Amino acid sequence: MTTTKTVFLTFFLVLPLFAYAGSKAKDDGVAETRAAIEEANTKFSKAFERGDSKALASMYTSDAIAFPPDSEMVRGNEAIGEFWKTTRNSGVTSATLTTLDVGRSGDTAYEVGTVSLTIQPEGKPTTTAAAKYVVVWKRHADGSWKLHRDIWNNLPSKK
Amino acid sequence: MTTTKTVFLTFFLVLPLFAYAGSKAKDDGVAETRAAIEEANTKFSKAFERGDSKALASMYTSDAIAFPPDSEMVRGNEAIGEFWKTTRNSGVTSATLTTLDVGRSGDTAYEVGTVSLTIQPEGKPTTTAAAKYVVVWKRHADGSWKLHRDIWNNLPSKK
Repeated sequence: MTTTKTVFLTFFLVLPLFAYAGSKAKDDGVAETRAAIEEANTKFSKAFERGDSKALASMYTSDAIAFPPDSEMVRGNEAIGEFWKTTRNSGVTSATLTTLDVGRSGDTAYEVGTVSLTIQPEGKPTTTAAAKYVVVWKRHADGSWKLHRDIWNNLPSKK
Repeated sequence: MTTTKTVFLTFFLVLPLFAYAGSKAKDDGVAETRAAIEEANTKFSKAFERGDSKALASMYTSDAIAFPPDSEMVRGNEAIGEFWKTTRNSGVTSATLTTLDVGRSGDTAYEVGTVSLTIQPEGKPTTTAAAKYVVVWKRHADGSWKLHRDIWNNLPSKK
């Protein structure tokens, strides 16, 4: 085999196989990513119940944005951690997250889910509420996924 | 140069350069993607003003999901086109979109923006409202970007 032939074969036959393998690997990461996101959501719910603003802040990217309904955007992971602590202190005692769908492209993933809230303001009866959300997640160098964009709104209230 | 050497050089020196060029191209596409998204948003606003459900539906992926506040999710581009037509007919006469931030990874992009609405129900005075949104966009084989996840909620009402 001549050198020219080898180069030809390498570039035009072998390279596309590498590219194909790469794209497959990217697509196939969805199940793994979904599992990581569901694990992170369980961690989120526990930190929320404790009102642990530091643990919550650590789950977001430093330039994350949260979008609470009827409010301005909350920018930065520390401000978002404080926002959740304030929400917890207002009487939202639990937030249970259910992932419905995850898509992924490289180090970015997007999740669709629903959240079920228990609301128990001091001296008032306990109520529940449900919301739907979209979260854009970013994978960090250490392999962990962090919330980067976090937006939600209410589902219809039950009658 | 022997064949073995050629193969070695191709795989270990040339391939990493290709991989580097690929990753650069991915990162550098953000400005171009933002311009494409802003153009799509202008098209969206015009189609919305006309109440053109078909044009609006064509801007979403077939398995898109929209998340109107206080409603169930709206699944599929045709249902979403109809949803916007119904919104238009209810008296929302215009929706002006402002892109604040775009991130991109491969064929997926996520946009943060605000939308300014003019609301003029028949026989009632005109009012305005403002919302914030996150859209996950998908690039199609033809290079066009389509809305894949579309969620928003209100900004605080002005006093």
